[in-house]
Amino acid sequence: MKDGSEEKVSDIGEFGLIDRIGALIGRKGVSSERVILGMGDDTASFLPRPGYEILATCDSMVEGRHYLPGFFSSFDLGRRAMDSNISDVGAMGGRPLYALITLGLEADTAVHEVEELYRGFLAELAPFGASIIGGNVTRSGSGMFIDIFLIGEVEQGKSVRRRGARPGDAVLVTGCPGEAAAGLELLVHGPRDVPLSDHPLVRAFRTPSHRALVGEAVARTGRVTAMIDTSDGFLGDLGHILEASGVGAELFEEKIPVSGALREGALMLGRDPLAFFLGESDDYELIMTCDPLHAAFLGGVAARCCSAPLTEVGRITAGSGITLCLSGGGRRALEATRWDHFRPMGDPSRA
Amino acid sequence: MKDGSEEKVSDIGEFGLIDRIGALIGRKGVSSERVILGMGDDTASFLPRPGYEILATCDSMVEGRHYLPGFFSSFDLGRRAMDSNISDVGAMGGRPLYALITLGLEADTAVHEVEELYRGFLAELAPFGASIIGGNVTRSGSGMFIDIFLIGEVEQGKSVRRRGARPGDAVLVTGCPGEAAAGLELLVHGPRDVPLSDHPLVRAFRTPSHRALVGEAVARTGRVTAMIDTSDGFLGDLGHILEASGVGAELFEEKIPVSGALREGALMLGRDPLAFFLGESDDYELIMTCDPLHAAFLGGVAARCCSAPLTEVGRITAGSGITLCLSGGGRRALEATRWDHFRPMGDPSRA
Repeated sequence: MKDGSEEKVSDIGEFGLIDRIGALIGRKGVSSERVILGMGDDTASFLPRPGYEILATCDSMVEGRHYLPGFFSSFDLGRRAMDSNISDVGAMGGRPLYALITLGLEADTAVHEVEELYRGFLAELAPFGASIIGGNVTRSGSGMFIDIFLIGEVEQGKSVRRRGARPGDAVLVTGCPGEAAAGLELLVHGPRDVPLSDHPLVRAFRTPSHRALVGEAVARTGRVTAMIDTSDGFLGDLGHILEASGVGAELFEEKIPVSGALREGALMLGRDPLAFFLGESDDYELIMTCDPLHAAFLGGVAARCCSAPLTEVGRITAGSGITLCLSGGGRRALEATRWDHFRPMGDPSRA
Repeated sequence: MKDGSEEKVSDIGEFGLIDRIGALIGRKGVSSERVILGMGDDTASFLPRPGYEILATCDSMVEGRHYLPGFFSSFDLGRRAMDSNISDVGAMGGRPLYALITLGLEADTAVHEVEELYRGFLAELAPFGASIIGGNVTRSGSGMFIDIFLIGEVEQGKSVRRRGARPGDAVLVTGCPGEAAAGLELLVHGPRDVPLSDHPLVRAFRTPSHRALVGEAVARTGRVTAMIDTSDGFLGDLGHILEASGVGAELFEEKIPVSGALREGALMLGRDPLAFFLGESDDYELIMTCDPLHAAFLGGVAARCCSAPLTEVGRITAGSGITLCLSGGGRRALEATRWDHFRPMGDPSRA
């Protein structure tokens, strides 16, 4: 008989795997009285809460595209995949409720690794009392893919969109975007003679987080005019708010909260820490806008949910585009860059 | 400048493709007053209907696993992928409302083919006034995958599950499961000297359908004790009902509605038509159980929604297992087979 850790998906088959996942969810998952039907029928079913909108989002991670298998444990990969969806719900001011998960697997995937993935999903859902109510496992073409559908709720009329930013609004951001990208860069190009696995940037990359509690708390105040999470990177996602709202922004270099860790990591890499902060990075921080009179109040609300600061970094302007007001005086136009899965990197002719 | 039909996904990039899909949905999609926020923000948002349960399901199609690209047009592939989800909602007695779609694409996929896929999705959603409210495009590892998350609704307390079948209940089925499998078999192994593209079995395979309207109508009567759709094949899916309900079944060979087309196709292939009816096939018919006194009434309800007959083919029994009562007398035990993506076909040692 095989040792459990060696067991492959092909050994127990699709239905054996579904049973194993169901048992794990039964042991480790949270149950909700509003779920009428969880896994095991043609569809799941739940009773929505009166006075609440239902939020629905999906996000996927494809091996070799969104992640390289050696860089994450399966548990952390599961957490990261779930966090990217929780972050989207939080960026609307909502709270996650139920997830459905499609896994595309190779036949020789270890069952233990699939269970670790699910432990990661559940670890991120549990603090919200949220649960996995359905899913689907299939054989992939090559490599694994994870596709998560997350359902959330927000009090009717309290959801915060991308399109509400107004000229004069303050631009705020949680934490320090760019740390995850710098952590990845350290793993790939960092010094080989320094142990990096405990470096805070590597931890920021490997051990994901989200600011959904902050998103929900600030949305409840009714004082946030627009919000988004930073899955494309600070400039890219601020760009989404500006485009949706028909406005521009100026950022103040001296206010940008580059963390000590990011400063140190960028130094090790010989790179500009500001470029990490502004550029493509998977950090799942939140960018929000509000009347500048409410910025300090929102900072206090956020501080009750999370240890990372909420920092005012700029202003919304009439017009379009993003300008950086340099610490030493002078201004520089910034280009919003966004990760595009279908375009070769660094090809300016196609940017 | 390139001709539109030659344009590749990599030519317009991820965000160009999202814009193109958004425009297509705007032109061809249905709008719903309950949708507060469709595509274009961190999540979609809608207002649920009071007194209704929300149904949620997901199902995926992976190139080379669920389909071979040459066998379907992109339009029909889109229809089939959506139908497999609509069928699941219908099998609960529900009605589809909103879809979110994840597409995994190769960079050289033609934009036109992606648009055709979406036309297929929308063609199947439109009759329900259902719409696409979100999604995600990503680059796949190799080959395409389509993952659809479908949200539906059913009047509170009216959903029909797999687990309600009782000994003595009649077993009913819509249409003639097995036609799709026979159509595929004709395309792969059928005679080369006969034009097959208009053969009804090939049409059954290529041009999908579902019985969601029947599912909704019979569920409303409150007289269906259990229901499932036949995505795994008749025996496999009847097996799911039996397992969930803790019962067995006997089928009456002379009542099994083998269609003329299936009889003729099986003859061309030198195969037993009954084996197609019972075996693995993607037909999206419905199996349901009810008190035998209500079978004729439900047949009448179904006839108002669809031209395919609802046929009583057997009885639920105490105990377990499926027995076929042969037309010539005698009985034969049947083994429920289910398509398993992770097991080699025809490997009895692992069945």
